[in-house]
Amino acid sequence: MDKGSPLGLVLGSVFIVVTILLDGELSSFINIPSIMIVFGGVIASMLIAFPIEKVISGLKGFPLIFQENTYDPNALIVQINDLAQAARREGLLVLEEKAREMEEPFMKKGIMLMVDGTDPELIRDILETDLSFMQERHGEKQAFWESIGDLGPAWGMIGTLVGLVNMLGALSDPSTLGPKMAVCLITTFYGAVLANFVTIPATNKMKQKTAAEVLVKQMMIEGLLSIASGENPALIEEKLKSFIDPSKRAASDSGE
Amino acid sequence: MDKGSPLGLVLGSVFIVVTILLDGELSSFINIPSIMIVFGGVIASMLIAFPIEKVISGLKGFPLIFQENTYDPNALIVQINDLAQAARREGLLVLEEKAREMEEPFMKKGIMLMVDGTDPELIRDILETDLSFMQERHGEKQAFWESIGDLGPAWGMIGTLVGLVNMLGALSDPSTLGPKMAVCLITTFYGAVLANFVTIPATNKMKQKTAAEVLVKQMMIEGLLSIASGENPALIEEKLKSFIDPSKRAASDSGE
Amino acid sequence: MDKGSPLGLVLGSVFIVVTILLDGELSSFINIPSIMIVFGGVIASMLIAFPIEKVISGLKGFPLIFQENTYDPNALIVQINDLAQAARREGLLVLEEKAREMEEPFMKKGIMLMVDGTDPELIRDILETDLSFMQERHGEKQAFWESIGDLGPAWGMIGTLVGLVNMLGALSDPSTLGPKMAVCLITTFYGAVLANFVTIPATNKMKQKTAAEVLVKQMMIEGLLSIASGENPALIEEKLKSFIDPSKRAASDSGE
Amino acid sequence: MDKGSPLGLVLGSVFIVVTILLDGELSSFINIPSIMIVFGGVIASMLIAFPIEKVISGLKGFPLIFQENTYDPNALIVQINDLAQAARREGLLVLEEKAREMEEPFMKKGIMLMVDGTDPELIRDILETDLSFMQERHGEKQAFWESIGDLGPAWGMIGTLVGLVNMLGALSDPSTLGPKMAVCLITTFYGAVLANFVTIPATNKMKQKTAAEVLVKQMMIEGLLSIASGENPALIEEKLKSFIDPSKRAASDSGE
Amino acid sequence: MDKGSPLGLVLGSVFIVVTILLDGELSSFINIPSIMIVFGGVIASMLIAFPIEKVISGLKGFPLIFQENTYDPNALIVQINDLAQAARREGLLVLEEKAREMEEPFMKKGIMLMVDGTDPELIRDILETDLSFMQERHGEKQAFWESIGDLGPAWGMIGTLVGLVNMLGALSDPSTLGPKMAVCLITTFYGAVLANFVTIPATNKMKQKTAAEVLVKQMMIEGLLSIASGENPALIEEKLKSFIDPSKRAASDSGE
Repeated sequence: MDKGSPLGLVLGSVFIVVTILLDGELSSFINIPSIMIVFGGVIASMLIAFPIEKVISGLKGFPLIFQENTYDPNALIVQINDLAQAARREGLLVLEEKAREMEEPFMKKGIMLMVDGTDPELIRDILETDLSFMQERHGEKQAFWESIGDLGPAWGMIGTLVGLVNMLGALSDPSTLGPKMAVCLITTFYGAVLANFVTIPATNKMKQKTAAEVLVKQMMIEGLLSIASGENPALIEEKLKSFIDPSKRAASDSGE
Repeated sequence: MDKGSPLGLVLGSVFIVVTILLDGELSSFINIPSIMIVFGGVIASMLIAFPIEKVISGLKGFPLIFQENTYDPNALIVQINDLAQAARREGLLVLEEKAREMEEPFMKKGIMLMVDGTDPELIRDILETDLSFMQERHGEKQAFWESIGDLGPAWGMIGTLVGLVNMLGALSDPSTLGPKMAVCLITTFYGAVLANFVTIPATNKMKQKTAAEVLVKQMMIEGLLSIASGENPALIEEKLKSFIDPSKRAASDSGE
Repeated sequence: MDKGSPLGLVLGSVFIVVTILLDGELSSFINIPSIMIVFGGVIASMLIAFPIEKVISGLKGFPLIFQENTYDPNALIVQINDLAQAARREGLLVLEEKAREMEEPFMKKGIMLMVDGTDPELIRDILETDLSFMQERHGEKQAFWESIGDLGPAWGMIGTLVGLVNMLGALSDPSTLGPKMAVCLITTFYGAVLANFVTIPATNKMKQKTAAEVLVKQMMIEGLLSIASGENPALIEEKLKSFIDPSKRAASDSGE
Repeated sequence: MDKGSPLGLVLGSVFIVVTILLDGELSSFINIPSIMIVFGGVIASMLIAFPIEKVISGLKGFPLIFQENTYDPNALIVQINDLAQAARREGLLVLEEKAREMEEPFMKKGIMLMVDGTDPELIRDILETDLSFMQERHGEKQAFWESIGDLGPAWGMIGTLVGLVNMLGALSDPSTLGPKMAVCLITTFYGAVLANFVTIPATNKMKQKTAAEVLVKQMMIEGLLSIASGENPALIEEKLKSFIDPSKRAASDSGE
Repeated sequence: MDKGSPLGLVLGSVFIVVTILLDGELSSFINIPSIMIVFGGVIASMLIAFPIEKVISGLKGFPLIFQENTYDPNALIVQINDLAQAARREGLLVLEEKAREMEEPFMKKGIMLMVDGTDPELIRDILETDLSFMQERHGEKQAFWESIGDLGPAWGMIGTLVGLVNMLGALSDPSTLGPKMAVCLITTFYGAVLANFVTIPATNKMKQKTAAEVLVKQMMIEGLLSIASGENPALIEEKLKSFIDPSKRAASDSGE
């Protein structure tokens, strides 16, 4: 489902490279000291700003934006409907076998709790606590990438200032100013690209994914508890549909 | 009713073009690589920031700002009054026929629910859920255009930085600096125009339209439920009038 | 009472003009294309951002900042006291005649409702609804001028970019750069003056006036309802005084 | 207690002057037209933004940041303890005499109300209303200085733009550009110093002082009402201590 | 545990120094007047903005970011479990001895209150008051460093403006402009480094540490009160585990 992130990264990179090549060379945009001051500086600031384990888990969280969103609310409604009908025909215990085949740990955990005869209110508490910790963990990763989005342009400016002071301090022949000035601006360019092409959009995509996952997990909680209290499968389906934007419902009932 | 959006777009474009022509040529403001880096870059960032379906539906939502606002609170009061009187004289069932002639799906749905004898509290729930999903959907479209308004100037700056690094890196003859510098600034110009002339005002207009639609739909809910509970048509009219700014009421009762 | 707004506009204009004349000519700051792109551009954006009726009523609302604030809380206390004593001696009906002589429609409406024997809770509802619509209308006008304050500098920058691209594109003789550059900067100047000298302060003054009017109207509601319930005039006066900053009370009882 | 404000103003001024003198002359930083456009412009905008009486009382409020903070929570605890013991031994009436010797009007007013036998709930209402008006008045003064902090740099930029347009418009000999450019930048310098050295820190100090005064006045209310209800002096002391940061308590009971 | 802060400070400094040395000399980045105007100016503004004792305690609070975080929630669970089992076997009084060996004052205080037979609700009140004062004190230190992060770049700009006015005012030979301009930019460099490399990340680390400490202290309150009410040690352990991110629990029970 998420073809957008790699497509966007490829497209944006192509646009930048083509624009560069139309009037210059790619090599003049790759400058090792500039890479060091911007990316190294950002990492240094991040190590001061966050505990070291959060820096590592934050960086590891980046590929999340390429992961396909496996949380499909319409598929879930079908699945919950199946479970509800099975439970109705053969009793709650039949769900244990079905849970074993599932991969999604949240749903699995909920079913196992039901099968064990746990009190419905306690099931809700346990699952909602899990959900709120998931939201907090994701929120921390988003805050991490938002910080990078702030620090990137800042270190880009620090790099440009270092370059300008070096260049101007040694200025004797103004005719050489051009190429040196070009190098100074590369760090500002890196910072702007890092923030506006990578971290700000990536943080937004992470937020969108979290919102989608939270919605589906809330539907799971509602659906499982309805099954536990023996509600009619058709009614459960109707209830869960109200969580979805009408235009996205498998059997849409109202346009915009 | 909404002649403002096309008028504003035409006027602003004329002002920009005339200002350009007074002292230069339009052709020097049209630069393919600059268009590519700014608009392409913004789209690339949007693909990373939003799921691909939301990018498409977001872009499709732009013409909304040209759509005439069909939600007229005063016309609604007249319409509700007619329905209330008809229901009073001939019973609720007579409304079914009137609903068939209507085009507005929200009102139609509400009347059909009433005619079917649905419980008033359930009608309110169903219509308010519909309304809140509508608000959320519109809110997402506005967030989409607000993001473009942030990314436009950012990619304008990235384009200018690419241009400056290319230009300065190859600088040998300072006398050629002028025209090249002009090209560098075009991306900044595109970004500023995209944000301040197009997306920021358009997002605001979308918000105004949503607010107008929400108001009228709230009046519909209030009006239909009042009809369902058999209230006096004159009283219903009075109640609905309180939703409208006194100076905008068809029969104004208090100036400012 | 509001001599501040015209005084400020005159003083600020004098300071700007004198500063210009000390080292240049006024004529070099009046440039028709620059006026067109900044003020025209702002109006174009406003037409996209707001429904056309709101643009018109927003622009018409500017002279509000010159209007004298006629809402004097101390005078109101005296007036309410008079009404309370008259009502006590001769009954509520005597207020009808006094209301006829009043010009303030809010107070007048409140008294007429009282004389008609309307239920006090209903009077409060009607007057508070009126007050909240007034606040919303004023809030919309303030949002309108705040938008102009954001768009002014933005269009100033667009104008400067147009000028720079035109100038640099045609640059052959660097010695002519100065005067042309001066013209480019005029739009930035217009935008900065529009925002910081006119719209930001004007919006603030409008907010101050609204706050003063709301305070007095809240006192009117409290005072009239106290009269309606036949409270002691001295007690009503004490109650209303608590709405005013002690240092501003006609009979001050506690300094700061 | 507040030696910080004058010390900071002196230190900062010395640092600025010394930095200037190391490489230039103080006279080149004093420019009458620049003073006029920045400070005059700010005052003009403030006259538009605020009613004229608030401009005057706002400007008068500046010396507040030099006033010693006379609200010492530890001294208050001792004082309340004395009052509580006196009231216990000799009755509430003995407090009247003690109140006469006090200078703090808030505490005095509270005691006089107690001595007059006013209902405790009414005393609390009266004192809390007084306190909330005090907070509002202080909040208005802080908003006034915050506005100056925003307008200072804005008028600094307007001044620089006027200077640049004048300078560039008359540019014939580029070699004279330097000294004229220096003059242009002085207004930006004034605006930056006004905001970052004076108004932003001063507003913060005002907020700190208000917070300290509010805390002590809340302690006064709590303490006086406890005396009025005849509580044990030792218990009252314990209760009031909970208002103070443990490390600041006269008799510290827990370090950090 | 906190190796991140010193590592980040060292890494960032190395990156800055290496970038400087690649194309210039370190000595050209050390300029006494620039240090004076930026760091002296910031301290002067801080003295105006905060009471003098808060400036001192704020500066002293910086090394906090190097302190190892001693609040380990998993170790606490083990410790509480030990205490709960000891209390179960031998009664609450046995905890007094254990408390004597502890270093953490918060836990110690809580146990001593329990041993003294204080009412559980009062213990909770006392400990939560302590906790909220701790949060407020830490919040003040964070606000202090956030202010430095705002003032650093502002004084950097003031320093650059002083340098520019001095330099341009004395400009006669444009060929000497380069090195002087370099010196002007050093203050901007100092301000940017101070804010983005030091104070903004340091403030964030402080917030992270406070959050960790608050979490553990909340667990202490919950754990001690559970012991006081004689709950089952296994149940207490389960309860406390719910405070920790599942993936960080010593005995993890659910992955993400």
